[in-house]
Amino acid sequence: MPLNRRIVLASRPQGEARLENFRLETVALPPLADGQVLVRNLWLSLDPYMRMRMNEGRSYAAPQPINEVMIGGTVGEVVESRHPSYRPGDKVLAMFGWQEYGISDGSGMRKLPDGPLPLSAYLGTVGMPGVTAWYGLNRIIEPKAGETILVSAASGAVGGVVGQLAKLAGCRAVGIAGGPEKCRYVVEELRFDACIDYKSEDVAAALARACPNGIDGYFENVGGEILNAVLPAMNAHGRIALCGLIANYESEQVPIRQPRWLLVSRLKLQGFIVSEHMDLWPQALKELADHVTAGRIRYRETVAQGLENAPAAFLGMLKGKNLGKQLVKLV
Amino acid sequence: MPLNRRIVLASRPQGEARLENFRLETVALPPLADGQVLVRNLWLSLDPYMRMRMNEGRSYAAPQPINEVMIGGTVGEVVESRHPSYRPGDKVLAMFGWQEYGISDGSGMRKLPDGPLPLSAYLGTVGMPGVTAWYGLNRIIEPKAGETILVSAASGAVGGVVGQLAKLAGCRAVGIAGGPEKCRYVVEELRFDACIDYKSEDVAAALARACPNGIDGYFENVGGEILNAVLPAMNAHGRIALCGLIANYESEQVPIRQPRWLLVSRLKLQGFIVSEHMDLWPQALKELADHVTAGRIRYRETVAQGLENAPAAFLGMLKGKNLGKQLVKLV
Repeated sequence: MPLNRRIVLASRPQGEARLENFRLETVALPPLADGQVLVRNLWLSLDPYMRMRMNEGRSYAAPQPINEVMIGGTVGEVVESRHPSYRPGDKVLAMFGWQEYGISDGSGMRKLPDGPLPLSAYLGTVGMPGVTAWYGLNRIIEPKAGETILVSAASGAVGGVVGQLAKLAGCRAVGIAGGPEKCRYVVEELRFDACIDYKSEDVAAALARACPNGIDGYFENVGGEILNAVLPAMNAHGRIALCGLIANYESEQVPIRQPRWLLVSRLKLQGFIVSEHMDLWPQALKELADHVTAGRIRYRETVAQGLENAPAAFLGMLKGKNLGKQLVKLV
Repeated sequence: MPLNRRIVLASRPQGEARLENFRLETVALPPLADGQVLVRNLWLSLDPYMRMRMNEGRSYAAPQPINEVMIGGTVGEVVESRHPSYRPGDKVLAMFGWQEYGISDGSGMRKLPDGPLPLSAYLGTVGMPGVTAWYGLNRIIEPKAGETILVSAASGAVGGVVGQLAKLAGCRAVGIAGGPEKCRYVVEELRFDACIDYKSEDVAAALARACPNGIDGYFENVGGEILNAVLPAMNAHGRIALCGLIANYESEQVPIRQPRWLLVSRLKLQGFIVSEHMDLWPQALKELADHVTAGRIRYRETVAQGLENAPAAFLGMLKGKNLGKQLVKLV
């Protein structure tokens, strides 16, 4: 058996996560048992939810345990199989986490089809982030043609899909992103109608310009003061899909300063986790794959090379240094 | 024609509303035109939403205009009619506001049936407050048998119905109210399972005791720090019907301090106004009338006598001095 390199959570962050919260280990792999598969991971997905798991305390999932491999989605290739359904060379989607190899009895693993899609897409637009966008938009916001849909972290793996799906639904799509490069990408490449640079613009004033008919649906990835700027601009009966609160993961929570808007505008605000809606994944993945294959949904990836660079890439993503889906290429 | 006494909004409150914000006037009534009805109001409804209307600024309805009759629901008796559908003696529900007489062409007016219900019930449990409770509970919270439903302002016209409907749906009903008398009423007379006195108890600690299985649905009438204490106690997939934010009507807004709970517990929080759901009123009113007639839903009223006492009764209600529905008896 080959040696396996893996990254474990060494300690819980106090405030901002740092490189020393992670530790790279090299360990021997146990021999395969009957019914098991050995997978060489090719791609590792880095996602904001991982930061939430690194904290202690009650959340929607148990905290990432100390000294265990960091959680995460992976795409890999079967290198050895004692399982009847898998053969060497099979490509699989799994949750092996931040490591170069994974061993599984097949549970939690899905064989990926041969086809036009690059393997990394199954960790992004045609994977969990894409389904997240699909679910929050279609099942919570429920956009109607002609409405205005706003999304924060619009250049990210989730946000970019939200706006493109909203456009396909006949809506005006407006993004919020950090910096001119991201905003250009969101408008020119992802074809949003507008994008607000929260780093250089007054968000409330920019919202008034970019959303002349108000906001009917808001897909929230960040929280913090952006949410406070958005609330008064929501139209009556607006819907807010609460997907992430990155602004709160590493620092003091920013309060919702004016709860009255929730009542005054009869808003619906709903938090969700896409893994609780597995029944909808097949439909969502089929639609997303069709859109990507036909060029109706575009995406970019930011790729770090090598497992040892995963922690820095992850910390960079939390600071918004990525454009589109953040991946680690392991081979 | 008789003289009409009425109360107008004299000025907008700065902070707390005060008696001098209102003015009692005596005016002549115009003669009835063809198709019109003259109604002697018997009961005037006082409701928290009126306080919101007294403020300037964007809200879900236009502000109550200065120097115009205060808005409000009324039950009255037709004293003169030039309308083919109304005869003297008919009892009618209308929105004539804070005055002794009203003139209408029939629009916005509803004839009340003869029956076992006292007329005042149509301003309370079998009226707008009752339908408000019915809508928020059944259409937003959607209680399932065995769940725990919490309601603030539990001894009020809306809150009391929420808890009793929740009990009828097989739920554990827990109230929050101010003071031992109200809490006794909520538990002993309205038959809630428990009631928390927010004036003498630590709400978070009391919630843990009164809701040992957490909170699945919260009907919010007050907002403020009570909402902040409730959020962490909500179960996963809990629903919050946002009906009122009395705590915010007269003072600085209390923020939602920990928005993360909305995400962590995948909560749905939805603001609503019952007047936007008129299609459901007939069903709701029928159910409520049946429950009251059969003794399954109980209520109390706090009655002020005479139009001139409406402002003081209203200010008292905002401070929680009423028990159950606050009314003004005009005759």
